[in-house]
Amino acid sequence: MKLKLSEITRLVGGELTGDGDIEIYGVNALTEANNDEITFAVPPHLEKAVDSKAAAIILAQAIPGLSQAQLIVANPREAFGKLLSVFAPTVHIARGVHPSAVLGDNVVLGENVAIMPHVVIANDAVIGDNTVIYPFTYIGEAAVIGKDCLLYPSVTVREHCRLGDRVIIHSGSIVGSDGFGFVTVGGKHRKVPQVGNAVIGDDVEIGANVAIDRATTGSTIVGNGTKIDNLVHLGHNDVIGENCLFVAQVGISGSVNVGNNVTFAGQVGSAGHLNIGDNCVFAARTGIISDVPANSFYAGFPARPHKEWLRSEAGGRKVPDMVKKMRDLEKRIAELEANR
Amino acid sequence: MKLKLSEITRLVGGELTGDGDIEIYGVNALTEANNDEITFAVPPHLEKAVDSKAAAIILAQAIPGLSQAQLIVANPREAFGKLLSVFAPTVHIARGVHPSAVLGDNVVLGENVAIMPHVVIANDAVIGDNTVIYPFTYIGEAAVIGKDCLLYPSVTVREHCRLGDRVIIHSGSIVGSDGFGFVTVGGKHRKVPQVGNAVIGDDVEIGANVAIDRATTGSTIVGNGTKIDNLVHLGHNDVIGENCLFVAQVGISGSVNVGNNVTFAGQVGSAGHLNIGDNCVFAARTGIISDVPANSFYAGFPARPHKEWLRSEAGGRKVPDMVKKMRDLEKRIAELEANR
Amino acid sequence: MKLKLSEITRLVGGELTGDGDIEIYGVNALTEANNDEITFAVPPHLEKAVDSKAAAIILAQAIPGLSQAQLIVANPREAFGKLLSVFAPTVHIARGVHPSAVLGDNVVLGENVAIMPHVVIANDAVIGDNTVIYPFTYIGEAAVIGKDCLLYPSVTVREHCRLGDRVIIHSGSIVGSDGFGFVTVGGKHRKVPQVGNAVIGDDVEIGANVAIDRATTGSTIVGNGTKIDNLVHLGHNDVIGENCLFVAQVGISGSVNVGNNVTFAGQVGSAGHLNIGDNCVFAARTGIISDVPANSFYAGFPARPHKEWLRSEAGGRKVPDMVKKMRDLEKRIAELEANR
Repeated sequence: MKLKLSEITRLVGGELTGDGDIEIYGVNALTEANNDEITFAVPPHLEKAVDSKAAAIILAQAIPGLSQAQLIVANPREAFGKLLSVFAPTVHIARGVHPSAVLGDNVVLGENVAIMPHVVIANDAVIGDNTVIYPFTYIGEAAVIGKDCLLYPSVTVREHCRLGDRVIIHSGSIVGSDGFGFVTVGGKHRKVPQVGNAVIGDDVEIGANVAIDRATTGSTIVGNGTKIDNLVHLGHNDVIGENCLFVAQVGISGSVNVGNNVTFAGQVGSAGHLNIGDNCVFAARTGIISDVPANSFYAGFPARPHKEWLRSEAGGRKVPDMVKKMRDLEKRIAELEANR
Repeated sequence: MKLKLSEITRLVGGELTGDGDIEIYGVNALTEANNDEITFAVPPHLEKAVDSKAAAIILAQAIPGLSQAQLIVANPREAFGKLLSVFAPTVHIARGVHPSAVLGDNVVLGENVAIMPHVVIANDAVIGDNTVIYPFTYIGEAAVIGKDCLLYPSVTVREHCRLGDRVIIHSGSIVGSDGFGFVTVGGKHRKVPQVGNAVIGDDVEIGANVAIDRATTGSTIVGNGTKIDNLVHLGHNDVIGENCLFVAQVGISGSVNVGNNVTFAGQVGSAGHLNIGDNCVFAARTGIISDVPANSFYAGFPARPHKEWLRSEAGGRKVPDMVKKMRDLEKRIAELEANR
Repeated sequence: MKLKLSEITRLVGGELTGDGDIEIYGVNALTEANNDEITFAVPPHLEKAVDSKAAAIILAQAIPGLSQAQLIVANPREAFGKLLSVFAPTVHIARGVHPSAVLGDNVVLGENVAIMPHVVIANDAVIGDNTVIYPFTYIGEAAVIGKDCLLYPSVTVREHCRLGDRVIIHSGSIVGSDGFGFVTVGGKHRKVPQVGNAVIGDDVEIGANVAIDRATTGSTIVGNGTKIDNLVHLGHNDVIGENCLFVAQVGISGSVNVGNNVTFAGQVGSAGHLNIGDNCVFAARTGIISDVPANSFYAGFPARPHKEWLRSEAGGRKVPDMVKKMRDLEKRIAELEANR
């Protein structure tokens, strides 16, 4: 695979400074790129551009004096992402149903699907057009998988759950495991049947080893465009909005309503039965224990406004000095009292 | 599926206020139920009962003036759970051994088992009566699975491990992975063979993507009736009591002894080689680093009595005010000293 | 399996006090061993040696007056580990390729491999000599697995990823899932293709349900001899050194450089794009948010030197007393002012 810089410019748009005939053989990170590759630079890494071996650099603003060709675009990350797709090594995917796959009764397969070896699809399930299902993935009874989905190896989609279109699920993830619901009677925990399902919207991506529980009744919902990183837990009856980001190892207890465009950084946890408004951002490791209004930037455990958290975090560190200070003040007071 | 309210009353017990001939077609949550469904209400959600569209509401105490039929029982959650089972959509499970399953030598299968497609059972394993094993689940050499167990897709039960009766394991969980045991010699970590096993009691439920390590020697043990949520880690040689609850993402290091009826809320962690007494409750995210006496309610990291944790948490937040205050006091002292 | 104490002494080295003809039938923990087994004792458990039922105890220094035979060696843990291998129940592994395994085109298999039932190996993959692959494990296109590796059930090694020799991967783990990379344009998160791979060194062990992401470009790297416990997350483009230890549930964001011999205790988290020097130790639950120099012992969130963390942790608890004290001082000042 190779493209001239002029062809790349046509592909991603923008303005090229440099020789359009230079041939590019790949895309790579700023500090890793070779002299036949293209890269990109954004703050705070702009000062590393001068030392990059790349043949060309995608930038938002020209940097005077750079030896490399410069391609100036509105959003360098976006342009770079586009080129990654173009240069990506393609994986060979055979369309059709492998003979070792086991399909139940009344399974409906769309056109151009790839059902790889050792897939199991239970009765009455529906698989949309162009969807690719890797080995060892299980689609439960009457589950519905949309079009253009990509399910990696060892995924489980339990019975009656639904995925939208263009959903990507990485290895080891489960959609629709039973919620953690028990009634304790005489010290013993009796299972509350989890008869609801889980419904995943369009364009959702779910990382590796994620667990999304089905609802007790009704549906656990993940809205369109939401992206979930590895090892995340979503409890039963959670209703998650659109275009949210869940970074790795986040855990959300049951019956939490999350608005749109909410970002949970790594290892955040939330108690159950809460409402979290649109556009909230939670710093890494925040522990949410009460409702959070829209547009909040929260941190800490218990969660509070980020500035407040910084202040109280700093507080603990000042105490040793304060203890000394207070001892000193007490001494001075005692002296004043003695001399009264 | 439909039942008259009078039939439901006979089924769960209790006292009905309302028309016993009303036909119920499903069970649902208080705020989700339709007018042909039954629901339940308990504190703190009782005030939402008046607005529920449900045809009937299960309650512990009658609420005067409600328009819906009321079914008064001792434990509304329990009654609701019973009805969930009754109304649950049944999943069709074919009994017998699917021809694509691979069974080793001397495997003993109980009566009425369901060994689904692409299951692998190694030599000398034993599967109890009525046990259901979903696709892609691996049962290791000489492992013993009890009666009436339910193993969802992609579960691994490693060699020589044992499950009791009525055990449920959700997708992606592992029983009997090697403990994390190494001897560091000259800066290199040499593996300590993990030759013990893991033994899971009766009526245990294990969520999705859980990892329970086998013991170095002897057994890692999970007692009868203990329920484990998604993404929980139990280290080698842990001995867990009966009827405990492990909420999602809890991690317990190796060689921890946990009593009966202990609750670990989400994301709790425990250091290894500790003893935790009966009936303890650990708030979310508690970090346990020393032994905990029975009947404790602990929180924080390091773990301490919940009240103490609340106090010290509040402490950090008071510091900024104290700093100001102290500056003021110092000024007043300086003035007194000047006027001495 | 049985060995005379004299044979054991020859095997592990060291000096025996006691009857070399005693026959040993197994190895076990100090408090669990029976009178035909051998055990070991190290501080702080030495005082339990006197009550052990074991026939013989491996020690670093003789304990006067013990009734059991004593085997004195330089490193009791190491000697015990060696004996565990000797006495371990062997698991029967059939060499060759099971007929239910599905191999793509141009797959290269080394000598003496065991490809168990329902394994899938994609086109152009390479499997080294003596490597054992359990059921339901997927090896992606052009992936390279070294010699003497052991891959347990339901492991995924995605396309183009590489494992060194003697790598062990426990059930449910994924090497080479897509990194969590998106460009947000107009409020929507567009996927950045992850075209790099993940490269795992020699002698690495990866626990159960671990997720190691592939790089956006280039490689996510885990150095030789590093050991990773269950449910750990390593982000895209992480470069991890040699002989590191990652205890359970650690999460490292993307583009973190970790030196050699670094230990992350349980549930540690790290922000992305950081440099962590050689020989660092992070206490359980540390939250790393900036670069850490070599040889640091850090704790807390935000991470700081362990001693400093202890001091600030203690600080919060002193505040309630300080509040009282300050009130008292203020009263005394007011009195002095009144009497001026």
